[in-house]
Amino acid sequence: MTIHVINPNSLVAVTQGLDDAVAPMRALSPVAIETHTLPDGPPGIETEAHIAQVVAPLLQRAQALQDDASAYVIACYSDPGLAAMREAFVQPVVGIGEAAVLTAMRMGQRFGVISILETSVPRHMRALAAMGVTDRCAGDMALGLTVAELADASRTTARLREVGAALKKTCGAEMLILGCAGMAHYRSGLERDLGLPVIDPCQAATAMAIGAVALTRSTHGDGS
Amino acid sequence: MTIHVINPNSLVAVTQGLDDAVAPMRALSPVAIETHTLPDGPPGIETEAHIAQVVAPLLQRAQALQDDASAYVIACYSDPGLAAMREAFVQPVVGIGEAAVLTAMRMGQRFGVISILETSVPRHMRALAAMGVTDRCAGDMALGLTVAELADASRTTARLREVGAALKKTCGAEMLILGCAGMAHYRSGLERDLGLPVIDPCQAATAMAIGAVALTRSTHGDGS
Amino acid sequence: MTIHVINPNSLVAVTQGLDDAVAPMRALSPVAIETHTLPDGPPGIETEAHIAQVVAPLLQRAQALQDDASAYVIACYSDPGLAAMREAFVQPVVGIGEAAVLTAMRMGQRFGVISILETSVPRHMRALAAMGVTDRCAGDMALGLTVAELADASRTTARLREVGAALKKTCGAEMLILGCAGMAHYRSGLERDLGLPVIDPCQAATAMAIGAVALTRSTHGDGS
Amino acid sequence: MTIHVINPNSLVAVTQGLDDAVAPMRALSPVAIETHTLPDGPPGIETEAHIAQVVAPLLQRAQALQDDASAYVIACYSDPGLAAMREAFVQPVVGIGEAAVLTAMRMGQRFGVISILETSVPRHMRALAAMGVTDRCAGDMALGLTVAELADASRTTARLREVGAALKKTCGAEMLILGCAGMAHYRSGLERDLGLPVIDPCQAATAMAIGAVALTRSTHGDGS
Amino acid sequence: MTIHVINPNSLVAVTQGLDDAVAPMRALSPVAIETHTLPDGPPGIETEAHIAQVVAPLLQRAQALQDDASAYVIACYSDPGLAAMREAFVQPVVGIGEAAVLTAMRMGQRFGVISILETSVPRHMRALAAMGVTDRCAGDMALGLTVAELADASRTTARLREVGAALKKTCGAEMLILGCAGMAHYRSGLERDLGLPVIDPCQAATAMAIGAVALTRSTHGDGS
Amino acid sequence: MTIHVINPNSLVAVTQGLDDAVAPMRALSPVAIETHTLPDGPPGIETEAHIAQVVAPLLQRAQALQDDASAYVIACYSDPGLAAMREAFVQPVVGIGEAAVLTAMRMGQRFGVISILETSVPRHMRALAAMGVTDRCAGDMALGLTVAELADASRTTARLREVGAALKKTCGAEMLILGCAGMAHYRSGLERDLGLPVIDPCQAATAMAIGAVALTRSTHGDGS
Repeated sequence: MTIHVINPNSLVAVTQGLDDAVAPMRALSPVAIETHTLPDGPPGIETEAHIAQVVAPLLQRAQALQDDASAYVIACYSDPGLAAMREAFVQPVVGIGEAAVLTAMRMGQRFGVISILETSVPRHMRALAAMGVTDRCAGDMALGLTVAELADASRTTARLREVGAALKKTCGAEMLILGCAGMAHYRSGLERDLGLPVIDPCQAATAMAIGAVALTRSTHGDGS
Repeated sequence: MTIHVINPNSLVAVTQGLDDAVAPMRALSPVAIETHTLPDGPPGIETEAHIAQVVAPLLQRAQALQDDASAYVIACYSDPGLAAMREAFVQPVVGIGEAAVLTAMRMGQRFGVISILETSVPRHMRALAAMGVTDRCAGDMALGLTVAELADASRTTARLREVGAALKKTCGAEMLILGCAGMAHYRSGLERDLGLPVIDPCQAATAMAIGAVALTRSTHGDGS
Repeated sequence: MTIHVINPNSLVAVTQGLDDAVAPMRALSPVAIETHTLPDGPPGIETEAHIAQVVAPLLQRAQALQDDASAYVIACYSDPGLAAMREAFVQPVVGIGEAAVLTAMRMGQRFGVISILETSVPRHMRALAAMGVTDRCAGDMALGLTVAELADASRTTARLREVGAALKKTCGAEMLILGCAGMAHYRSGLERDLGLPVIDPCQAATAMAIGAVALTRSTHGDGS
Repeated sequence: MTIHVINPNSLVAVTQGLDDAVAPMRALSPVAIETHTLPDGPPGIETEAHIAQVVAPLLQRAQALQDDASAYVIACYSDPGLAAMREAFVQPVVGIGEAAVLTAMRMGQRFGVISILETSVPRHMRALAAMGVTDRCAGDMALGLTVAELADASRTTARLREVGAALKKTCGAEMLILGCAGMAHYRSGLERDLGLPVIDPCQAATAMAIGAVALTRSTHGDGS
Repeated sequence: MTIHVINPNSLVAVTQGLDDAVAPMRALSPVAIETHTLPDGPPGIETEAHIAQVVAPLLQRAQALQDDASAYVIACYSDPGLAAMREAFVQPVVGIGEAAVLTAMRMGQRFGVISILETSVPRHMRALAAMGVTDRCAGDMALGLTVAELADASRTTARLREVGAALKKTCGAEMLILGCAGMAHYRSGLERDLGLPVIDPCQAATAMAIGAVALTRSTHGDGS
Repeated sequence: MTIHVINPNSLVAVTQGLDDAVAPMRALSPVAIETHTLPDGPPGIETEAHIAQVVAPLLQRAQALQDDASAYVIACYSDPGLAAMREAFVQPVVGIGEAAVLTAMRMGQRFGVISILETSVPRHMRALAAMGVTDRCAGDMALGLTVAELADASRTTARLREVGAALKKTCGAEMLILGCAGMAHYRSGLERDLGLPVIDPCQAATAMAIGAVALTRSTHGDGS
């Protein structure tokens, strides 16, 4: 059986980053962990139209993987198709945005979110509201970097530190969530620099899927 | 390394029930799972005074277990000592009350809670408020059975079904949480009877601890 | 210029019902009101997969209508594609679910929602939470009728009255929202029977679009 | 039939400003739009005592206008007499404060409010709380200008821009509400300067009244 | 110095009832307690127009009493003029509705409210929302008795018991608030019958005023 | 009869400060006010473990004082043992943290909290959430001074003024709460400097206890 981590965009490089992020978890998981690219997805999920558009291919791919699926992880912070996947499959479905928030909630009272783009912040606020946990969010701030600047790791590192420090100091965030799927390699450095726990949503979601598999399989074993 | 599940009361029979509940998870966990009784605890945790009184022995016991501890589970639905444990230990600490709620939150929108005693309901409402998730709770209803009646499994089963059905039908609960540590053996039967997911808090918490261990150990591996 | 009311399912009969519901508003609108069927939509929008699946054809249809569009109304209570439409078009986009709620909020403190299916209630609760207005909802109850029973107008009328009376009496609803696009013909009878305002979401949304057109066109006239 | 927009203070110049603000809407309204001054009101509504004191003359004036009233708009951001007017009249009654908020809520997730005076902010926060929409407000900041400074249009423009920019950048406001009845002439300039939608509450309320008239009259036509 | 308890309606009999309710507190107060009728008020405060209309005479009366006023209590559950009084006077001003809620909040987690009329419930819900404490209210139910029935003490007693029992049992109220100024004489009987604390709002408010006087006068004594 | 104000730490100097803070209230109280040190408590309450650890000795001390107790005040801002004390005693039990918040709530809409340590802020946010009043808090900021700096009164005064001014200006706080038991001597100066009401929690709590005693004793006198 397998936890299937599906990157809903079409970029293999992004999937490779996800795979690197979750690789150390393989030794700690009762089942295999596989990462997948969605070739029918857009090259990046940037608009509400993209979020809707990936749902059908995501469902199809999950359907194809169902025979050996223990759980699914949807590896985009906007959690595209989360409700549709839960409706369609009996297996646990974990969205990385929701999982990051639930993980932060067992670590302290209020978390901060570092977004890539200003335009993501309202969407995040709406998702937190839908979860009913707005009061647990100390703040959500965007890096506000161009694509070129994001490609520059030292520029990105500096800006992550700057935004993270503001969330800690000005907003009172006790831990930080990286509000995007592809930033895991910055996680430990940022955690060390700021002296705060930093949560990569893919890692948090995959870990939650490991727990969910343990729960589901063991309670199925008690007769349910 | 080990996940230590600590029953903060002094009854070995209760610990045995917990052990039975989490036993099937051992095969799915990357680390050992051990259950412990707290001999210095009261025979049951029924009052706010009990909740406070178990904190010091709980901290001591956890301290004694620290060398091989991967995570701790506090196996009482009131989550006694949760904040104190988190302050004292770097390992993940999971309270079964909080864990049950966070688990329900990844399954649907609104959960119901089945309490043993009427007097627990206000405490549960306060805990949900402190978590900021009041709106995710469809209702919390008590069995209202005497100790003698609770000892009668068929009476208890009937009453669980009655209260669970009311939470489903009247309150719109999409899944149910057993609001007490010792009811796991009723879980699968109730789930089948009501056609709703039923969450045992000890199982949910231990599963969450498995995920937390996977997250902590793998991200420590990336240099943090 | 025109307010385009788009039924995102493929049933012409449903669109005809919408057209009947909004027809009296044509004499009161500064611009034309046209209703449209989405032939690429499913025959009904019943699942989360349906909600996602209609977004792309909805965007395409709206694009084709853009030249004379003053505003768009998405005529499904689940507001499929609302965020995507707002992102894509400068014109006001009104979702009938959101519009019904905002309309109720200018009439009194707490509204009730009558859903067709039990399974819609959690989705409605999540949408209200995302809007941040959970506390304005007194309750959401489902008719729980089969398709055959829904086809029986007297059966449906009786059940609407029953559920509406419960929302009024037990939950304290001051007005009711029909939680579905196709019930407008029951509106005035139910209002009369219960002595409460009853809001048809398509009518409320089209009226809100009329207001939105008045606002947009007049403020564009002031130089913005 | 007529939408009656009542300025509850006694200054004809303020009413003239309101009339200018809503004038372009006349061509887009199914009914006439008339603005009125309340000679028995205070010259400005600045205190809680003023808010209470205008209710009786407002009700009297509305009573006198009732024969041809399609809807009423109360043109003060504090919405004086809103509940009393709704209780007394069958016609829709729109408060400009409430209407501005409901209008912002169909445009995005979180709005900012620009207040004239620091002392208005707590009143606004209480009104938002009463509406149950506190979480939709990104922030409320005051211009903090003296009466003399407010009379200086270029000083006021500069300060509006400054406060609006802070609400956008620091608080994450996606659109702005002018938290006062007499600022409509600054609206389009501010919108252009900041690149955010800016809502004048009188315009938003009158537009909402146009929609409400369309809804009321058309649904009365269906037999209710 | 004196705590002035002002009944904002014109009925001397109501004031007499208030005086009886607070009489036992005189021996426990550091200052005198006087009750007052507002001859310019309506015979009862039943509508939103009444609530607004009493503000001006209330302010005048309070002004006339100011020389020896230690605190004011506004003795109507709708708290008419509370904000205006606080704005006008440096002395503490206590509204009986707000005071009853704040008193319940130091007794347990969730209170129930017994209203006289169905039409008061939405107003109460709005006031609780404005206070930001909606989640502390387990329910608000109306007696729904006619004036004639209310005049019948045994009929009223029975109905209070019935509604109170429903708030306790169905809603989980831990204590009850009598949501009207003139029911104090039913308080102790209801408390005994239901086994729950029952709060009369005039008594709670006057007691809070005693505390407020102690706070104000002693802290003025420290140089503030 | 007596109001017993119990300092749950072991420092007599702290108790002396409390006694000074409440001394002027003695002349305004219907019963005596006594302050007590808890010799079995830690020298200061700084951790969650301390909060739990003082509960048992607090209950014992309160038990010993019960014969002449009219009310209890727990004089630590974290309100240790508040629920346990309420469960154990029929007398009113007032926690100074809760009392400060309830006192602020009758003065205006949003209060600010000045904490000593950054690490207290999350605990305060959780307590406010548990009370369901998060939206009434404009902000909670820490002095962030070392113990040595706190011992320097002019340094502390300057920092209180700085943090208080930020809460007023940036967060919109209408009044301030000193989020610690031992700062009463700074209260009136800070109030004067900032032009805002400043609440010392021990004074607020003792005043609330005076009111609670008045309420309890007078309503016991009516037969309950």
